[in-house]
Amino acid sequence: MNKIEHIGIAVKNLDEANKTYAALLGKEHYKMEEVASEFVKTSFFQVGESKIELLEATSPESPIAKFIEKKGEGIHHIAFHVDDILEEVERLKKEGFTVLNETPKRGADNKLVVFLHPKSANGVLVELCQEITNV
Amino acid sequence: MNKIEHIGIAVKNLDEANKTYAALLGKEHYKMEEVASEFVKTSFFQVGESKIELLEATSPESPIAKFIEKKGEGIHHIAFHVDDILEEVERLKKEGFTVLNETPKRGADNKLVVFLHPKSANGVLVELCQEITNV
Repeated sequence: MNKIEHIGIAVKNLDEANKTYAALLGKEHYKMEEVASEFVKTSFFQVGESKIELLEATSPESPIAKFIEKKGEGIHHIAFHVDDILEEVERLKKEGFTVLNETPKRGADNKLVVFLHPKSANGVLVELCQEITNV
Repeated sequence: MNKIEHIGIAVKNLDEANKTYAALLGKEHYKMEEVASEFVKTSFFQVGESKIELLEATSPESPIAKFIEKKGEGIHHIAFHVDDILEEVERLKKEGFTVLNETPKRGADNKLVVFLHPKSANGVLVELCQEITNV
């Protein structure tokens, strides 16, 4: 956990939110990407060593659609960068955290990702991210 | 807006949350501080260039108590570091953002802070932080 990789924000309309966050941050997003497996479209802004990730649902089945239905737009998760995601999962399980997917899955922005249950971390949905490298 | 200064997380019990986040992040908090004007006790963890700030209400009148009552524990705000908070406030007002306190107030961790209304930023409570320096 050597840095905050990104903060995920659930939005209803990605194009509108892109304009809002470009105005807020004083810069444009550097990429957009669809993650079909999660039913989301994403947009990324770089802020220092971290990113702001805006997420719009592409289906009512998307976790983002369900989140917005329940809580409205807002911060959805915090993602921490890790060097070895399997090692971190083992460590956190021993510490008593509930891991939502023990097998890392492919997320946006070329990452392997694992989520921890919000009940483990005071209501915060925590994502662990490891960069996918081609050796 | 050159980095994420911190992410604020509303918790019910700071001592318990300190243990949870020390286990999550693999390190201890580096300080605790009470901000009497905001009716909160805070605890800070360093993660890369950013911080995790845990916040516990010290009074039912605290914004943190009201947040937890309404939404439960969880992420309360994102704070961005700025070099010149007055200049940023002027810029963001021109961009159409709603500023909650135009006059910066003293926050935790030796900062001048201004908040933007969550309705301005897709449900996200945004804080601007400038380090207080003694010239």
